[in-house]
Amino acid sequence: MSVDGSEPANWSVEEEKNYDDWYLDEPAAPTKPAHEIILPCDPTVPDQLYHLILAPLSLAVLLTLSVLVKRRRLCKGWFNGVPGLLSPVNFLGQDGQKAGAAAVFGVLFCSLCRLVLDPNPLPFLTDSSLQYREYWKILALLYYPTLYYPLLACMSVRHGAGYFLGGILSWLHCGILIWQKAQCPEAPKFHRYYSLLSALPQIACFLLLSLLYPAWLLKKCKEDKKSKCDEVTESSYCLEYLQTLLKKKKKSSSQLNDCFPSQSWSSLNSYLYSPQQGFHLPLKLILSSTVGGICLYQVALLLLVVFLPTVQKIRAAIDMDAVLMLAGFGINFTQDREEAIILLKYYLWALEVCYVSALVLSCALTVCMLVRSLVLHRSNLKALYRGATSEVFLHDQRLRPSRSAIFCWMSFTSYQAALTCIGLLLQQLVFFICNIVITFLVIIPVVYGKNLLLFKILKTMWPFWVMVLLALILQHLCARFAFLQMSSTTRELNNRRALYMLTYLLFPINMLMGFLMGVWRIVISALFNIIHMCRLDISLLHRSVETFDPGYRIYYHFLKIEVSQSHPMMRTFCFLLMQPSTLGRPARTKNGDVEEGIQLMQSKTPLTKGVNSRQSRTRWWLAYTLLNNPSLAALRTARLVAVTPAPNGTPVMSPS
Amino acid sequence: MSVDGSEPANWSVEEEKNYDDWYLDEPAAPTKPAHEIILPCDPTVPDQLYHLILAPLSLAVLLTLSVLVKRRRLCKGWFNGVPGLLSPVNFLGQDGQKAGAAAVFGVLFCSLCRLVLDPNPLPFLTDSSLQYREYWKILALLYYPTLYYPLLACMSVRHGAGYFLGGILSWLHCGILIWQKAQCPEAPKFHRYYSLLSALPQIACFLLLSLLYPAWLLKKCKEDKKSKCDEVTESSYCLEYLQTLLKKKKKSSSQLNDCFPSQSWSSLNSYLYSPQQGFHLPLKLILSSTVGGICLYQVALLLLVVFLPTVQKIRAAIDMDAVLMLAGFGINFTQDREEAIILLKYYLWALEVCYVSALVLSCALTVCMLVRSLVLHRSNLKALYRGATSEVFLHDQRLRPSRSAIFCWMSFTSYQAALTCIGLLLQQLVFFICNIVITFLVIIPVVYGKNLLLFKILKTMWPFWVMVLLALILQHLCARFAFLQMSSTTRELNNRRALYMLTYLLFPINMLMGFLMGVWRIVISALFNIIHMCRLDISLLHRSVETFDPGYRIYYHFLKIEVSQSHPMMRTFCFLLMQPSTLGRPARTKNGDVEEGIQLMQSKTPLTKGVNSRQSRTRWWLAYTLLNNPSLAALRTARLVAVTPAPNGTPVMSPS
Repeated sequence: MSVDGSEPANWSVEEEKNYDDWYLDEPAAPTKPAHEIILPCDPTVPDQLYHLILAPLSLAVLLTLSVLVKRRRLCKGWFNGVPGLLSPVNFLGQDGQKAGAAAVFGVLFCSLCRLVLDPNPLPFLTDSSLQYREYWKILALLYYPTLYYPLLACMSVRHGAGYFLGGILSWLHCGILIWQKAQCPEAPKFHRYYSLLSALPQIACFLLLSLLYPAWLLKKCKEDKKSKCDEVTESSYCLEYLQTLLKKKKKSSSQLNDCFPSQSWSSLNSYLYSPQQGFHLPLKLILSSTVGGICLYQVALLLLVVFLPTVQKIRAAIDMDAVLMLAGFGINFTQDREEAIILLKYYLWALEVCYVSALVLSCALTVCMLVRSLVLHRSNLKALYRGATSEVFLHDQRLRPSRSAIFCWMSFTSYQAALTCIGLLLQQLVFFICNIVITFLVIIPVVYGKNLLLFKILKTMWPFWVMVLLALILQHLCARFAFLQMSSTTRELNNRRALYMLTYLLFPINMLMGFLMGVWRIVISALFNIIHMCRLDISLLHRSVETFDPGYRIYYHFLKIEVSQSHPMMRTFCFLLMQPSTLGRPARTKNGDVEEGIQLMQSKTPLTKGVNSRQSRTRWWLAYTLLNNPSLAALRTARLVAVTPAPNGTPVMSPS
Repeated sequence: MSVDGSEPANWSVEEEKNYDDWYLDEPAAPTKPAHEIILPCDPTVPDQLYHLILAPLSLAVLLTLSVLVKRRRLCKGWFNGVPGLLSPVNFLGQDGQKAGAAAVFGVLFCSLCRLVLDPNPLPFLTDSSLQYREYWKILALLYYPTLYYPLLACMSVRHGAGYFLGGILSWLHCGILIWQKAQCPEAPKFHRYYSLLSALPQIACFLLLSLLYPAWLLKKCKEDKKSKCDEVTESSYCLEYLQTLLKKKKKSSSQLNDCFPSQSWSSLNSYLYSPQQGFHLPLKLILSSTVGGICLYQVALLLLVVFLPTVQKIRAAIDMDAVLMLAGFGINFTQDREEAIILLKYYLWALEVCYVSALVLSCALTVCMLVRSLVLHRSNLKALYRGATSEVFLHDQRLRPSRSAIFCWMSFTSYQAALTCIGLLLQQLVFFICNIVITFLVIIPVVYGKNLLLFKILKTMWPFWVMVLLALILQHLCARFAFLQMSSTTRELNNRRALYMLTYLLFPINMLMGFLMGVWRIVISALFNIIHMCRLDISLLHRSVETFDPGYRIYYHFLKIEVSQSHPMMRTFCFLLMQPSTLGRPARTKNGDVEEGIQLMQSKTPLTKGVNSRQSRTRWWLAYTLLNNPSLAALRTARLVAVTPAPNGTPVMSPS
């Protein structure tokens, strides 16, 4: 079977070679190399067997872990004390297993890509059941997340057995996949290596998981010897965040010198995500970036293999017949037929170059946009953590969960992936057309002196261009030297009569310039929207209606949930409340009336002074903390009201 | 001559009738009504003669007025004491001649439209000089403003002779134009009545001028008897503005009841421009709106006459041959030929309906946008007058003239006209395509049960739609009832494990929803930009880069010049400084140390109290005025510093 597996088996190799030339609907070219024939290949473990082994195994792992957790009641606080069906990763936590979760999402996303492109949604289906293909596809959309669910659950139980089972599972997945691809690297779909190349991210993710699980198991064994608490990583981040926040800020010297190199460096820096001490991105954003990156790779690969081999085949098959056929449609390049073949091949080659360069440009821009998104996510989150909602949202917003906020938070990662895909496709389409226009109307005419269509049009319009240019220069010169009176304190209008006269007399010429400006406005706004289509963190609509943009709306609500539910300071308070004497702090009973979070700040002060001075200092720290985090004030008040119904005597800040 | 005047004169009427059917390249249809023949028509005063009379006459009027103004040194203050070439309208003033200026701009704009469409740029050119048509067109771009220059200059000299000469000129223009159109209402270009219809706005503008000039002359004669000052209108507006500003504001009751009808009424009201007491729009904005409105009319008319008669002719000419020709291209509607003719005619009629409805929609939206612009212009100007720059520009800006600001201010009106034109063309194109899609893929299939292409596609995709809908409902229901815990003070997340599981398991389905959302994002942002293309007052780019939008940049700089140069309060101060004892105020010598503008506020207080109380009250008024208009503080300080080098003892506000 050569192309789609539907030819009868008695086709000869010669016939198959001819079949490759069907693009021209012409009789066979005399001789062709046989390198396009892909021999059928059956791996030792076919897809069917792979799923038939791993699906029951995954289920078994899930059940085993559930029973294990139920029996030993591990980590009661983590599961709200009700073990049962295992939780996937804690999306709102900062628990140090981000790489593992991102790898599982990458694996899942690659499976989805294959699912969309494959005619057979589930590999273990027989041909007879494929008549209900739509239903099977829908079922497959739920099957794949379930298949990879144990890979997440094994890491979230934080138990040695979990890590062990997860490691076994990921080794199995990884081993079978690599074995399959090593045995059959070529496949007939799209391009001989497409199947292999599209599986690379999945293999990489499985490899990562296969390395992570043993590492976690090893770490767990070491930790079990020292202490029994798992949540040190959780609180250590919060502690780091708090210490960075409360540290005295050094005056950054880069803000002082506003020279051009430093400005350009800082603007370039805003497109590079460099980690900052004391701040980790939330898990959801890391997942979105990972999935976005893999999406970029898969779509770019697909775009490449769908177009390029086809055009290359057409180019190789161009001969006299093709030229004659084109001449039949009235397309004549030159009178000389040999030259026409060369020209036609050259033009097709130029088309390929346009396509590839458009793809490279689109991918580079999308990567830039995704990284820039990360930088903006960080600055937005930091601003919201310190309560500056109006910096991020233009208007003050109350950050609390709501129905639509929860829905948007749930679908954020998926929407980011979908938008990355759509944005890349749009960019590729637009840049390809632009490249074709530039190549065939500007570059080839300039280099070869042929098809000077655009230049002829521009040449006939030269009086118009000269007029526009002269009017532009005249107005700018007059505005600078005749109409503007600059003094040390003020700038005033001068020669008003001449200004009014010029304004009136140049009205028609300015209107022509207005048309040029209008075209530029269309181009710049369309380009801006196309390039920023993959970004959820900015709205494509005007600022007065920015939440009508569905993409920005998702982000807006996502931020609300993230900030209200995983504020690092709030998490530290909660953690300290739950674990009274961890981290070597003074015990809670010593000054029980002082809030817990403040104890953090005492780690570097000796406990020798009197209770009064300590209490006043802690009160000062409290005020400082609340001043730096106004969004906490409302929460604190609500909590204080709930705990002590009438807090007389203590100054309670009113929730603004 | 029937269509373009190039046929030999001995063509018979029958041949001419056949010529009308050239659209199908078919032999003549047997019988056709002769209503399409437009007989040649020569008006008594052809265009050549019109220009040969009026151009010298306009020049003569201009010279006469210049001499008259020079000899009698009229209005010395108005011309900076150097009369010479007359000024056109004072674009930065509020001098009550807005209607006249708008009419002249309307006339000029209509001439430009004709210039662009006409092969002969200047009617008095001979055929031999048309080989340099480009140069003549450029010259014509300067000729038409010069031709109508006296119509503006006559009103700006504010002299009886000016009004008289202007009246004569406008009567001549108006009379000749009406005479021409009455004699030859039909012309062969585009449509028989296109020429007449496109001249209607010009005739209306000339009629307005012909009425305004006598009215001004009459008013002038009356005023001459009373007083010699022309600038009462100028200051009366400023006085009105100040009084409205300083009046105690009544609590508007509409803000109190936030019920749905009042909200919708207020949002509807923001698209209706109703004049407000004490605020007049600047002249430039009125000119822009007038020119924008006329541009809308001209472009819509052109779009109508270019498309509709052509399609109607094709529809009338459809017969068996056309159906056979389409069948030759493989387009078969039905087997029955008679029915095919009826169907084809019906489809063409549907196409016409689509086109006209798209045009009506585009025009309605453009009118809405232009009116909405006016409302926003007013609110922006009012905000800037009271110094709230950050309300309008997002960041604080210093409002003062600069080179680019002057350039943008000069070209604002032209750019508004050009963008209105481009916006309407874009809207028409997009809405026409949308209408065709809706009509031929939705309405006709639903009504007649034919071509159910779209519905078949939707039908095959129904499991997908059901799945998406179910997932959407499931997530929203869960978010509302399972994951959100609402109490009286806070809203908290609940059932986190189930939330995380649902988030993970629905990732693939949410991605499909993300694709739908992405398509919606493309549609909504494209529609928003297309509809708002004609508006300069909003940026089509994101708020962080909004001044990169060339349209918004023009508006941004325009506002800077308008506010810095024609702030009503500043104008009042200047006016009072120049005219010490006007309007019946107490003379300046009485309290010379008090600033002039404050005297305005004393108009309603009797002059019986002591100097101390008056001085304290005036100081209070000064502080109040400056508080309400912080943008004046900087100007006042600079002026005070310039007048009195060391203002010791008086508290000078520092320019922020």
